Amino acid sequence: MDEAKLKELFEAVRRGDENVEDAVEKIRRLPFEDLGHTKIDTHRHLRQGFPEVVLAESKTAEQVIAILGAVKRNGNNVLVTRIDEAKAAAVCAAHAEAHHYPAASALALILRPVEERGKGRILVVTAGTSDIPVAEEAAVTAELMGSEVDRLFDVGVAGIHRLLHHSDLLFSANVVIVAAGMEGALPSVVGGLVARPVIAVPTSVGYGASFGGISALLGMLNSCASGVTVVNIDNGFGAGYVASLINRA
Amino acid sequence: MDEAKLKELFEAVRRGDENVEDAVEKIRRLPFEDLGHTKIDTHRHLRQGFPEVVLAESKTAEQVIAILGAVKRNGNNVLVTRIDEAKAAAVCAAHAEAHHYPAASALALILRPVEERGKGRILVVTAGTSDIPVAEEAAVTAELMGSEVDRLFDVGVAGIHRLLHHSDLLFSANVVIVAAGMEGALPSVVGGLVARPVIAVPTSVGYGASFGGISALLGMLNSCASGVTVVNIDNGFGAGYVASLINRA
Amino acid sequence: MDEAKLKELFEAVRRGDENVEDAVEKIRRLPFEDLGHTKIDTHRHLRQGFPEVVLAESKTAEQVIAILGAVKRNGNNVLVTRIDEAKAAAVCAAHAEAHHYPAASALALILRPVEERGKGRILVVTAGTSDIPVAEEAAVTAELMGSEVDRLFDVGVAGIHRLLHHSDLLFSANVVIVAAGMEGALPSVVGGLVARPVIAVPTSVGYGASFGGISALLGMLNSCASGVTVVNIDNGFGAGYVASLINRA
Amino acid sequence: MDEAKLKELFEAVRRGDENVEDAVEKIRRLPFEDLGHTKIDTHRHLRQGFPEVVLAESKTAEQVIAILGAVKRNGNNVLVTRIDEAKAAAVCAAHAEAHHYPAASALALILRPVEERGKGRILVVTAGTSDIPVAEEAAVTAELMGSEVDRLFDVGVAGIHRLLHHSDLLFSANVVIVAAGMEGALPSVVGGLVARPVIAVPTSVGYGASFGGISALLGMLNSCASGVTVVNIDNGFGAGYVASLINRA
Amino acid sequence: MDEAKLKELFEAVRRGDENVEDAVEKIRRLPFEDLGHTKIDTHRHLRQGFPEVVLAESKTAEQVIAILGAVKRNGNNVLVTRIDEAKAAAVCAAHAEAHHYPAASALALILRPVEERGKGRILVVTAGTSDIPVAEEAAVTAELMGSEVDRLFDVGVAGIHRLLHHSDLLFSANVVIVAAGMEGALPSVVGGLVARPVIAVPTSVGYGASFGGISALLGMLNSCASGVTVVNIDNGFGAGYVASLINRA
Amino acid sequence: MDEAKLKELFEAVRRGDENVEDAVEKIRRLPFEDLGHTKIDTHRHLRQGFPEVVLAESKTAEQVIAILGAVKRNGNNVLVTRIDEAKAAAVCAAHAEAHHYPAASALALILRPVEERGKGRILVVTAGTSDIPVAEEAAVTAELMGSEVDRLFDVGVAGIHRLLHHSDLLFSANVVIVAAGMEGALPSVVGGLVARPVIAVPTSVGYGASFGGISALLGMLNSCASGVTVVNIDNGFGAGYVASLINRA
Amino acid sequence: MDEAKLKELFEAVRRGDENVEDAVEKIRRLPFEDLGHTKIDTHRHLRQGFPEVVLAESKTAEQVIAILGAVKRNGNNVLVTRIDEAKAAAVCAAHAEAHHYPAASALALILRPVEERGKGRILVVTAGTSDIPVAEEAAVTAELMGSEVDRLFDVGVAGIHRLLHHSDLLFSANVVIVAAGMEGALPSVVGGLVARPVIAVPTSVGYGASFGGISALLGMLNSCASGVTVVNIDNGFGAGYVASLINRA
Amino acid sequence: MDEAKLKELFEAVRRGDENVEDAVEKIRRLPFEDLGHTKIDTHRHLRQGFPEVVLAESKTAEQVIAILGAVKRNGNNVLVTRIDEAKAAAVCAAHAEAHHYPAASALALILRPVEERGKGRILVVTAGTSDIPVAEEAAVTAELMGSEVDRLFDVGVAGIHRLLHHSDLLFSANVVIVAAGMEGALPSVVGGLVARPVIAVPTSVGYGASFGGISALLGMLNSCASGVTVVNIDNGFGAGYVASLINRA
Repeated sequence: MDEAKLKELFEAVRRGDENVEDAVEKIRRLPFEDLGHTKIDTHRHLRQGFPEVVLAESKTAEQVIAILGAVKRNGNNVLVTRIDEAKAAAVCAAHAEAHHYPAASALALILRPVEERGKGRILVVTAGTSDIPVAEEAAVTAELMGSEVDRLFDVGVAGIHRLLHHSDLLFSANVVIVAAGMEGALPSVVGGLVARPVIAVPTSVGYGASFGGISALLGMLNSCASGVTVVNIDNGFGAGYVASLINRA
Repeated sequence: MDEAKLKELFEAVRRGDENVEDAVEKIRRLPFEDLGHTKIDTHRHLRQGFPEVVLAESKTAEQVIAILGAVKRNGNNVLVTRIDEAKAAAVCAAHAEAHHYPAASALALILRPVEERGKGRILVVTAGTSDIPVAEEAAVTAELMGSEVDRLFDVGVAGIHRLLHHSDLLFSANVVIVAAGMEGALPSVVGGLVARPVIAVPTSVGYGASFGGISALLGMLNSCASGVTVVNIDNGFGAGYVASLINRA
Repeated sequence: MDEAKLKELFEAVRRGDENVEDAVEKIRRLPFEDLGHTKIDTHRHLRQGFPEVVLAESKTAEQVIAILGAVKRNGNNVLVTRIDEAKAAAVCAAHAEAHHYPAASALALILRPVEERGKGRILVVTAGTSDIPVAEEAAVTAELMGSEVDRLFDVGVAGIHRLLHHSDLLFSANVVIVAAGMEGALPSVVGGLVARPVIAVPTSVGYGASFGGISALLGMLNSCASGVTVVNIDNGFGAGYVASLINRA
Repeated sequence: MDEAKLKELFEAVRRGDENVEDAVEKIRRLPFEDLGHTKIDTHRHLRQGFPEVVLAESKTAEQVIAILGAVKRNGNNVLVTRIDEAKAAAVCAAHAEAHHYPAASALALILRPVEERGKGRILVVTAGTSDIPVAEEAAVTAELMGSEVDRLFDVGVAGIHRLLHHSDLLFSANVVIVAAGMEGALPSVVGGLVARPVIAVPTSVGYGASFGGISALLGMLNSCASGVTVVNIDNGFGAGYVASLINRA
Repeated sequence: MDEAKLKELFEAVRRGDENVEDAVEKIRRLPFEDLGHTKIDTHRHLRQGFPEVVLAESKTAEQVIAILGAVKRNGNNVLVTRIDEAKAAAVCAAHAEAHHYPAASALALILRPVEERGKGRILVVTAGTSDIPVAEEAAVTAELMGSEVDRLFDVGVAGIHRLLHHSDLLFSANVVIVAAGMEGALPSVVGGLVARPVIAVPTSVGYGASFGGISALLGMLNSCASGVTVVNIDNGFGAGYVASLINRA
Repeated sequence: MDEAKLKELFEAVRRGDENVEDAVEKIRRLPFEDLGHTKIDTHRHLRQGFPEVVLAESKTAEQVIAILGAVKRNGNNVLVTRIDEAKAAAVCAAHAEAHHYPAASALALILRPVEERGKGRILVVTAGTSDIPVAEEAAVTAELMGSEVDRLFDVGVAGIHRLLHHSDLLFSANVVIVAAGMEGALPSVVGGLVARPVIAVPTSVGYGASFGGISALLGMLNSCASGVTVVNIDNGFGAGYVASLINRA
Repeated sequence: MDEAKLKELFEAVRRGDENVEDAVEKIRRLPFEDLGHTKIDTHRHLRQGFPEVVLAESKTAEQVIAILGAVKRNGNNVLVTRIDEAKAAAVCAAHAEAHHYPAASALALILRPVEERGKGRILVVTAGTSDIPVAEEAAVTAELMGSEVDRLFDVGVAGIHRLLHHSDLLFSANVVIVAAGMEGALPSVVGGLVARPVIAVPTSVGYGASFGGISALLGMLNSCASGVTVVNIDNGFGAGYVASLINRA
Repeated sequence: MDEAKLKELFEAVRRGDENVEDAVEKIRRLPFEDLGHTKIDTHRHLRQGFPEVVLAESKTAEQVIAILGAVKRNGNNVLVTRIDEAKAAAVCAAHAEAHHYPAASALALILRPVEERGKGRILVVTAGTSDIPVAEEAAVTAELMGSEVDRLFDVGVAGIHRLLHHSDLLFSANVVIVAAGMEGALPSVVGGLVARPVIAVPTSVGYGASFGGISALLGMLNSCASGVTVVNIDNGFGAGYVASLINRA
């Protein structure tokens, strides 16, 4: 459409029906809606290798099914996050391509094979067992974006030997994601051991003065280890996403 | 420059040196830096009738003098906010066009006459005498943007008759700015009396649980009067600015 | 009653039964309850062109129905906010004049035609689709107060081209309402583009460190764009109300 | 028991079996558990004219019934607060002396007539209709403690004339209780008008940045009117209690 | 002026130049600025027995001297709060009637004898020695308002016997003011012992998690003793003021 | 495995197949996973005399039953915390060794007799009756860790004589645990009376400005009594655990 | 005095001038001011082995000197905390018994030899070098209360091997004090390694989101290691005090 | 030492003086202090290519000079952060290898050439000019760690065309660091445009409700763009550090 208009303008110039000054002026006056911006949108999926994410939390199963029906026409893979058992079952019944990841409360439509894009491995670590759902969301996200993922769960700082026992996994990772609630101290310990980026994910695990993840979040932001960056509370998806971007470099 | 390139492209199409498809593609590839965006910048000053604001708070007198020297070449008026007595004196000595507003801790370079742009009057109200500096910053801003301003100071809610006594000023204003610290209750009372927009400015006046203006801010955000909107703590400039925009409508 | 007493007083003066000094003194002693204040109440509806708002959230359908039954005797239009599907159905069954706006969780009794009062158009913008209910509450409020409203939804800052693509809507609005959750950044971008007042409405959309809208609220209060004012979290009604006041100027 | 020991000691002194120095020393060594303290407990009810308050909120109807069964043996009146309709019905069925105050979510066992103890009248004021339950809790408490109570509801600051219209009630009160949510501004206005103590009760009425009553609480603590003191959010009982103490002076 | 207009109106009615209906209508239309409100202001000082309070904190000695010069023409006593040693010396040099209370950081102009107005005694209690300045501000305020004041300092809860040792003072007070920082627990203990109103004043004494008095404030708001109300952090003046109002009852 | 590798290395040295320098270097290069760390894990249970704690709050009865089935194979006693009535009944039906402590919302598998390890007695004190569940969790934990426990409930600061009446219990305790909500003042009073460590447990008991235990927590952190330390809100288990450690010294 | 009255009473009983029942009644009526409470005060110093602590922070050198002059007459040792270099020099010049601990910003009057009272050793650990002043305050306090103290500084979690390298110190301590700022994670790691009580001291070391020690405080309160209790931010004295109490057990 | 012991053990095994089982057991018993951990420390510098960072903020020039004297003996480069003009001048006078970066308030000892280690370019972006010091700290850090850095300053969201105008820089960066204060919205916009990791650095730039960077921090944590991670307020060093780690991948 805009392309058509542009073409028409050039044709008019070529035919001599429009003089050059007026044509330049017409383009000058296009405020923002020039094709350049649309192009970005189109290229975005290709650039990022990841088409669309659907947050199922506040949607009904019917809504998720309908959205997936629309989105899958593009032929890109789709990740659905924060989907419970019941909704996931309904979606799987409706879309044959759906694959459910119950530990991650996630679901994916795999419409084309996930292309191997990571240069190294991503390690996902948790402090406790209650942090696993957030960690799995990160892991599944990273896998769907083309990285290989290792998992190391329940190695929190109150039993530091559990972490140290697996130093091989720590030292062989290209990026480390660490999910922890309560005091959120594990990313600092990991960040002090490895020489690679550490993505810290505070979880809402805890009670009382954990304030739904605020204590863990603050602990991570104040990490005395230099290679640690932080995402939002319980944002496993974001951690997996950015770890994948790093791993693709 | 970009205009030159565009012109050259059209000439090439006109001459037949470039075919239309290629020309369209070339324009598509221009990512963002097309002329449209630059145009906005240029027009911005004209559209908004207000060129540049300099925040003096964290700058030395020398830095302010130098910035004003550069800015005034555009021939637009300039407002300097949060400037103390000493810096203002130095600036006035260096720039003959400078006018100092000590009650507002502000200063202006009036390079061309302020154009009358407001349709009505703006009333600036304060709860106490300590709120006056913030109120004056709002008033001076609005005056420099072309509105007529009335002032009604020290009419806080603990002596509600003081406000009611001046109902004529309240009812004749097109926009009302209300600056208040402590419990920040005055905008609600004003908002309940007038049928015009009320811009509430929380001030950092108070002690203890006033928390540097947070209590006043929260009071204003929770106003039970419907016509009240809020700006940042001590943001007299912002209140004056938006009141002027409303008054120009 | 008070009017009766006043009349009696004047009659006594006229008859010579009361001398002037005593009459003046008697009026001086009327503390607050003089008719002047009641008059304001009476005129308020006319001045503001908007009679009464009913917040349905903590009321039963029966209570809402009863309140509307009482209010509608005044012949003024009524807006009911925060009403869910079930209550709205019950109210519509009970009051034939009721019109339900499900996207806004609102309902209105239109007892007389809404008078066209706005001078320009109000644009309601959202960052995401989850912000739409708040935006629709603002839009319906503004429409019922006599303004024409445009809508531009799901144009958040993470895909800034979506907003820029609709610059025509932005530049043609007299007032812009921007509803956004999460980081609440969209009002700053809009405020930097347009030269008209921007009413920012933080929404409780988000999770973790969004703290039910606090992050968005703080982002908006700290906006680096000068024409932005803020209302309470999820206060679509307030935003629509004040935008209408501005648009009537 | 302790009394017995004391008696024995005195008897021993009397008999000459114990010399005076040793007896003084023995009493000196009694750390805290001397009878004096128990005496305070016994006298407390008489001194305060109010025996026992039962908070029903986290108790079952059966628990409340059982507690009342035990407490009423003392023959003192009992106030039950925060009791919902269902529990209240069950309690009334079980205890014939129970009187239910549904507007206050309260219930009382009146075992002996409430003695008139107040010197003046207590006025209970609310900003809105949603504040009434808290206000009624205050009013019922004060009435059960022997004060006469007036009520003035829905006179919030956004329609200040509604308050001013009732200045007679304000000026005739010995103590004023003001319950308000949202911005909590009403106590400041009342405190500025009257020359008597004002007890401010923040309520959890509001949404968004009202933060469950924090905004109202802060507004009241920062009141620019000097005669205002504050109790906890929704603490109608505490307000009624302290108002009664003041009114008994 | 308004009085003149009123008189003129009555004269016109008396002369028959104005009919009664029109005269009533004219008065109805007077919005707020009728004399009644000014009257309140005039009566306020008499009603409250306390003319004016000057907060010296953010004023220069010269400003305080000038304000006192103006205020003392009314012949009422004046209290100056939060005045440091240097300013107080300057003020005393300028105004012979000035009396300095260094322990309270206060100063008063005693222009007419303080009238004995309290029915009982006010007891001012502190938890520690650092709370004394706030307590003294309360005590001086209450004395200037006509109450007799007792002092009981440094009897905090970590040495509860110190408080209990002075139970005679506690039981003989008509109102008790308790100033405490840190955990702010003393008002609860006092409130549990006495049957009179307790005014709790949180002080900013403490460090770390005392947060400038917030911990003490929260402790007092949550007091499990029913007769406790709270004023702002370090607000000794407010506590003394309201205690005086109670004591006058 | 690692042990096998180590053995192999020593054998090679013994055989002369590996020289000493290389062997030392190989051990130097073992990063963390040496056996020493595993040893700590093994010894941990013995050192601490307490094998495993299961938090039942977010687990189903089935999950708790399964975990206990696995854990009890070690032959150590197990404590289950935050288990409600229904889950406890299911667990007791499944595991004959289970003992339910309903007042503590706890359950234990007693697989071997609890060894008497405490040198003195632990006293658990509460301010109110609502704090008892937290206190019981502390008491049961301490008992299972081998200490004798006394209980002193409902002795809050608003009736200080109730505490003083039991000074014998206070003075005979080796460690005191104090659970309190609302203003959390009781630990300060207790800490001022005894010369032993006081473990303060803030509880989420309260409403309004108690903020789910934050006020109590802050009160305890700011205690003016020197021997007080604090654990997380509602953390009865932690208090009982650390009191046991102290009592074992 | 009270003793005199008591003696007189006993003499009267002995003489037969007073019968036993009346004597018992008279003692019963003594409300609080009986000698028992004073006795506690007297015994307190002996029981706790530590007479008096003087907080120098808000006092002048002259005030500290005067207080020490008064306190030292009791012959007990005195600890002065938060005293800077200049004040310490002045105090040392005035009191020959003064000993300055610059690293702890502390000073002590050693009037009699510190009695060895600890059963084991106290280990004081810090995360960084900036935490040392707080740690030294704890160490000096504990030493003056009769415990032997080891120090292990700068072993924070970002270099966990530094801590592990000193496991002998960790395992040989009877009580461990851990001072840490920023994320405050070290106490959790230490608490997971040792089987003794860990006293965590958050320090105000850090910037940005460390919020003056709040992040460290929250991290410690949420510690996933069970033996950790917490004191106020920068409260080295409190940590040393309670560690000494534990070590005396 | 430990190495000597290890050697001795192997020698004993080789000589047959120690059997293999006993030798394995001896190594098993080494708790933590085995050489493996020390080794990590030694290798850390090599692995991370960055020896030591000195925070000058709370140190005197003399202390910084002394620390640098000690550290430079290792021959590694050293970065000094948060050093003001005066201290930097003193350090440069004392250490000839010192290079001062005034815009970054940083200083470096370049003892060996910085090795080129980055695979791509790092772009450092700021919202305003006040954010530049933080951005420069990030840039200098990254340059000293071997990355090439581009700078794009003062392109905040209120003038979005300024950012879009430089899309070439955005699209050619391998990692983007974005420093912003106030509402902190710029990282979201950048994150929506690029397909590479974005490190967001909140700055303490702003006033009122910016709360020293908290608003910017919250905005960034809630970013609706998926590739954004966050570091502490004003933590330019951390952002530069982690960006370098990513760029080395």
